[in-house]
Amino acid sequence: MSVFPVAELSSPAAARQVARELLPRLAARSQQHDATGEFPAADFADLREHGLLGLMVPEELGGSGASFADYAAVAVELGSGAGSTALIFNMHASVTGALAHTSDELLRELGATDAFLAERDRLLGAAAAGALYGVAMSERGSGSRLSRTTTTYRRVDGGYRIRGSKAFVSGAGHADAYLVTAKDGDAAEPTVSYFLVPAGDGVLVEPTWDAMGMRATGSHDVHFDVRVGPEALLGGIEGLALLVAQVMPQWLVASYAAVYVGVARSALRNGAAHLCERGLHGLPTVRSRMGRADAAVAAAESVVREAARRVTEQPGEPETNRWVWRAKLVAGDTAAQVASSVLEAAGAAATRRGHPLERIYRDARCGALQPATSDVCADWLGVAALGGDPDHDTDSPRW
Amino acid sequence: MSVFPVAELSSPAAARQVARELLPRLAARSQQHDATGEFPAADFADLREHGLLGLMVPEELGGSGASFADYAAVAVELGSGAGSTALIFNMHASVTGALAHTSDELLRELGATDAFLAERDRLLGAAAAGALYGVAMSERGSGSRLSRTTTTYRRVDGGYRIRGSKAFVSGAGHADAYLVTAKDGDAAEPTVSYFLVPAGDGVLVEPTWDAMGMRATGSHDVHFDVRVGPEALLGGIEGLALLVAQVMPQWLVASYAAVYVGVARSALRNGAAHLCERGLHGLPTVRSRMGRADAAVAAAESVVREAARRVTEQPGEPETNRWVWRAKLVAGDTAAQVASSVLEAAGAAATRRGHPLERIYRDARCGALQPATSDVCADWLGVAALGGDPDHDTDSPRW
Amino acid sequence: MSVFPVAELSSPAAARQVARELLPRLAARSQQHDATGEFPAADFADLREHGLLGLMVPEELGGSGASFADYAAVAVELGSGAGSTALIFNMHASVTGALAHTSDELLRELGATDAFLAERDRLLGAAAAGALYGVAMSERGSGSRLSRTTTTYRRVDGGYRIRGSKAFVSGAGHADAYLVTAKDGDAAEPTVSYFLVPAGDGVLVEPTWDAMGMRATGSHDVHFDVRVGPEALLGGIEGLALLVAQVMPQWLVASYAAVYVGVARSALRNGAAHLCERGLHGLPTVRSRMGRADAAVAAAESVVREAARRVTEQPGEPETNRWVWRAKLVAGDTAAQVASSVLEAAGAAATRRGHPLERIYRDARCGALQPATSDVCADWLGVAALGGDPDHDTDSPRW
Amino acid sequence: MSVFPVAELSSPAAARQVARELLPRLAARSQQHDATGEFPAADFADLREHGLLGLMVPEELGGSGASFADYAAVAVELGSGAGSTALIFNMHASVTGALAHTSDELLRELGATDAFLAERDRLLGAAAAGALYGVAMSERGSGSRLSRTTTTYRRVDGGYRIRGSKAFVSGAGHADAYLVTAKDGDAAEPTVSYFLVPAGDGVLVEPTWDAMGMRATGSHDVHFDVRVGPEALLGGIEGLALLVAQVMPQWLVASYAAVYVGVARSALRNGAAHLCERGLHGLPTVRSRMGRADAAVAAAESVVREAARRVTEQPGEPETNRWVWRAKLVAGDTAAQVASSVLEAAGAAATRRGHPLERIYRDARCGALQPATSDVCADWLGVAALGGDPDHDTDSPRW
Repeated sequence: MSVFPVAELSSPAAARQVARELLPRLAARSQQHDATGEFPAADFADLREHGLLGLMVPEELGGSGASFADYAAVAVELGSGAGSTALIFNMHASVTGALAHTSDELLRELGATDAFLAERDRLLGAAAAGALYGVAMSERGSGSRLSRTTTTYRRVDGGYRIRGSKAFVSGAGHADAYLVTAKDGDAAEPTVSYFLVPAGDGVLVEPTWDAMGMRATGSHDVHFDVRVGPEALLGGIEGLALLVAQVMPQWLVASYAAVYVGVARSALRNGAAHLCERGLHGLPTVRSRMGRADAAVAAAESVVREAARRVTEQPGEPETNRWVWRAKLVAGDTAAQVASSVLEAAGAAATRRGHPLERIYRDARCGALQPATSDVCADWLGVAALGGDPDHDTDSPRW
Repeated sequence: MSVFPVAELSSPAAARQVARELLPRLAARSQQHDATGEFPAADFADLREHGLLGLMVPEELGGSGASFADYAAVAVELGSGAGSTALIFNMHASVTGALAHTSDELLRELGATDAFLAERDRLLGAAAAGALYGVAMSERGSGSRLSRTTTTYRRVDGGYRIRGSKAFVSGAGHADAYLVTAKDGDAAEPTVSYFLVPAGDGVLVEPTWDAMGMRATGSHDVHFDVRVGPEALLGGIEGLALLVAQVMPQWLVASYAAVYVGVARSALRNGAAHLCERGLHGLPTVRSRMGRADAAVAAAESVVREAARRVTEQPGEPETNRWVWRAKLVAGDTAAQVASSVLEAAGAAATRRGHPLERIYRDARCGALQPATSDVCADWLGVAALGGDPDHDTDSPRW
Repeated sequence: MSVFPVAELSSPAAARQVARELLPRLAARSQQHDATGEFPAADFADLREHGLLGLMVPEELGGSGASFADYAAVAVELGSGAGSTALIFNMHASVTGALAHTSDELLRELGATDAFLAERDRLLGAAAAGALYGVAMSERGSGSRLSRTTTTYRRVDGGYRIRGSKAFVSGAGHADAYLVTAKDGDAAEPTVSYFLVPAGDGVLVEPTWDAMGMRATGSHDVHFDVRVGPEALLGGIEGLALLVAQVMPQWLVASYAAVYVGVARSALRNGAAHLCERGLHGLPTVRSRMGRADAAVAAAESVVREAARRVTEQPGEPETNRWVWRAKLVAGDTAAQVASSVLEAAGAAATRRGHPLERIYRDARCGALQPATSDVCADWLGVAALGGDPDHDTDSPRW
Repeated sequence: MSVFPVAELSSPAAARQVARELLPRLAARSQQHDATGEFPAADFADLREHGLLGLMVPEELGGSGASFADYAAVAVELGSGAGSTALIFNMHASVTGALAHTSDELLRELGATDAFLAERDRLLGAAAAGALYGVAMSERGSGSRLSRTTTTYRRVDGGYRIRGSKAFVSGAGHADAYLVTAKDGDAAEPTVSYFLVPAGDGVLVEPTWDAMGMRATGSHDVHFDVRVGPEALLGGIEGLALLVAQVMPQWLVASYAAVYVGVARSALRNGAAHLCERGLHGLPTVRSRMGRADAAVAAAESVVREAARRVTEQPGEPETNRWVWRAKLVAGDTAAQVASSVLEAAGAAATRRGHPLERIYRDARCGALQPATSDVCADWLGVAALGGDPDHDTDSPRW
């Protein structure tokens, strides 16, 4: 894996401050990245240089030792600068965060050996040193449903052979390794496991990503036909994927939420700038739209912050998980609505390509469509509100 | 003033707990109070008995010494039990809270003498002992606009003579004293001051309240033609009213918000009970409506909590005040929307009088209409979001 | 049946004009009827006197020979005057309209004899002479689902014995006869038939109606234990109920729609009057709310008119039926939204009981909850939009 | 002007049929035009060939003699095929329609001479023969506000000299002539007149158009510095522009509406196709979204049809004009909402570039932003609903 020079160890608070300071730089580059759809390399150089790739890594492994609440605060800032960059970062943070926040005790209970714990530490240390991880979980046709994974792994000499095609792999071609979900090709019962597969031979990026919004995520298809050593199986534990989805839904469900709160904030900021510049800030309808948008963003931000606080303080609790799903629903819907209303306040001139609000309008629409979609969140939350078990009371599996 | 036996001194945390425990009792009585429109006397007996009338009173004066954040937490619980009761309580808490949270230093700077500080302590002590205060601020025609107050005060031998008519006085006829806004009848410049006028001769309640929602608040008209001593002028300071509106907007703007978060919560709770009882909890549209309602209530609750936290930690800061206005807007709108959607999920049977959702639907509609209305909040917030000064950049005075 | 003096035969155009002229009289009485929940007897005296009970009756039987489009136009006017009155009228029009608009040919095909056709003519003639018909179709627990009807009929000497309890019977106690849905108590297969049961012995009205909105409809429970002659079976044909629901959905689905367009219109009219009187008509937010409400009502009105036109010109066509369901959905949702927004524009003063907007807000909420509810309509229309058969592609029977 | 072979004279009904038949061809090309932003030349070749450029031209001048209602029906079909093509067509139809539908009597009253009527006939005849007209009315900074027009005309030898820059000129570079609004550069009072300026020297297209939606309209900036003969002044009448805006608002306000109803329809059609193909049509949330979208489109379509009918039958009546503004508001808002909800039903896969729903989502957002914007429409309609004169009761001029 690549090793870059990184900033010295920094605290979570420092990381938040760094994210705030990087915001204008990310924002300045975001139009160009959107126009070309290219990977935001300069943004990631900044993140690396300032140690943000080690945000979730424990201090003893060279990182900032951040909590989920810290992550959310950082992601809001990054998303307010450049949505695509924040989304790629979100994937990396999900991998490193889930690795860092699963206790040794639990891993040992599930069967992890010392060798696997050492491998985990190596992966985290590499992140602190600048390695970037991607997530290769979704597949065409089945979306992010783990239970419908068609990528398989089989035991071979020296480890596993993993074969299958993934879609929506943010940062594809720029990650040093990918978290791949694959099912046991030999098992009768569906067993979906996590592998961390290094970039290189047998990992082929097909440049399919050309989407309406979040264009610079480079969320291409990636085809895997690769042999990996036994250490690539995360924790050395098979069947971890569904468990993580239910026990740590924050990383699959709500890590997006913070990004979209950031995107919604950028709609407010750019809208206010545009309207003041054009001398339209005194119009009653403009004030009304901006005021309601401001309140909606504040509400979304508060929900995300509350969810993040609970994940940090009471991870895995049923009530915590409800807040996680609420955060995803509110943030996704709010971003789309706020961007649309602010664009309407700004007027037709803001729909020209190259205008920040034009990009933000397209970026903001994506949140509700990413898993878990708003409609899926609403159903999950409805079951919970009606006293049911939302992870299991469902016609078709959630994951 | 009446003195009731009250519970021994209790902490804010204990007060929150008490409110949670009283919730079912308030809820059980709320239908009856709504039907008859009578003052919820039994509820207030409970609040008195458990010391909640002293919630905002400093500990050294016999109260709980609660912060605004404590108030908000209590008000959410009360509002989830009985909206009307919570609204009357809100008025009382506003009077006692504003009195308790204005520092001696500030009061002295503004001209308060020791005698007035002693009078303030007397008023707070009486509240801790069970006295109930009402607010007589709105007038027919001018609403809650302080600048349009027509009630006057004039200097007379031994104090002031106050004359004028007030509307929407929650708890009218049951309060021991009323906070009355009046303008100086002799001044050229509009000077609006606060008086605390004891119930009794010269204070006439005209039973005009018969409204769609929040029916048990007894928010009747009250006519004043009364002489009061010099100590009735709050702080001994004239012209305090507008100042308070801008410096402590939480009490005029956002204290309602917590009540309506409670009302919204009660819609969720009663909706879930109705739907489960009827066996309708499995319908996809029901789940979707309940899930979205749940998330919306969580968002409103988070905003109110964040606003309350900031009021407590950084009172009077511009950013704090923005959160105050956001809380009012989001809570008022959310209550109405959630109650309407949950009613639709529950179906026509829930529109029968006597069904909790029928009452809640009517109660919930009132929040956005109470000052500052949602439209006024949106305008205020819009000016702020556009970089203006929302208290002054306006075509007509906010208050 | 009662016979009242009625106006001479009038054309549909004249009937529309009459409805327009009656509007202010209905409106003037509506507050009183709402307050007491009493049957709007004076309104129905007016309708009788002006021949509107014979609106749907063919000219040769003494009526106006109105089309569904005529009905819709009349119902909008009546609903704009008094929602409850229009709803009761709607039930009467549904009975007479369905009777009048089913061709002799079709009835004969289905097995109707001359005697039954004569009986139908007698019923229609009586309506033209002032008889009022109600509909007793819904039941507690099963709502308006025909397939879940528990009221039964059994063959007895001299006809049928009908036993069961109905709910939501608008105009209960004031109708001369009721259209009752009942299932064959002896058949293995569910067969739901229509009977026209005269008021009198064996028909017991239980005064259960005390609802949030549409309070003057007197939609009480009615208990039937009655013997009727063979002529009471409509058309002499068993199993007609489901057929009618699918072939003439306008009378079960969209006849409500016109009423709620009227209610929405009354919100606009009363809102404008209130706002102008209070001098609030110049406020930008007021103008914006009223403008959007105006456009929404126009849209709902246009959909209802288009549906009514198609029912009149191409009854029973699949495309016609889609418009019928669209009309119900749009009218029900629009009425609730418009009444809510106009109330918010009008402010807290308009929530006092006795203010027209207070009543209208409650009335307007009911449309989306009456069968077919908005959620059911959305599902039906979604199946159709996706190329399915909405009457049959459903998890549970529509009726 | 160019003359193309055109179809023989066709009736309005035939034109509607032609538009329906062209829909699939336009739809098939629309992705390519959107991707490149190029003028839809093949579409206009089709429109020319089938005589649609003569749609509004009287039969005696070689056209179809269509009414506004006919125009609306045609525009819905074209918009359902390709929004951009329909918008360019809309501009052409506005010019030809306004020319064709202003009576000789009125023109003579306003001062038109025979020579000008002959010139008008020549222009209309050319359209029937295939000439395409554009509209150059908006300017950067002032939008479509006629009163703020900065383009000037001055009397010179042999006619007028017109100087100024226009923005948002749909079809720029492909029109044979442009309808230009210009103010009298010598008059003290603002006098805004219409000129028809042929393409050619002195008319410079600056390719600035690169927008989020409606990309193939080529709505570039056009710079005018050109001398025209006296016949270029439309009707030979100065100051016509504001008059037309108020008397024939349909062409400035609601001709867009039909286009966006078409766009909304295409969202439904493409959404249904996508969902059925993916096997997602059975999901309850999908059905609900599609059903509500279907009803909303029906409502918008009905309002536009009603407005068009009234324009045709009672042009210029105050009530007609209200329907015109309603149509613009409802169609613009509906298109955006429907496209957004259908996209959400379809899921992330539909946000890939090249997917019809991705384009439609961007196209659909533009309607509410085009003049008169939804916020302006709401204000206009609000004033009317409150009994005011919406063309004059306004803080700033509507046009």
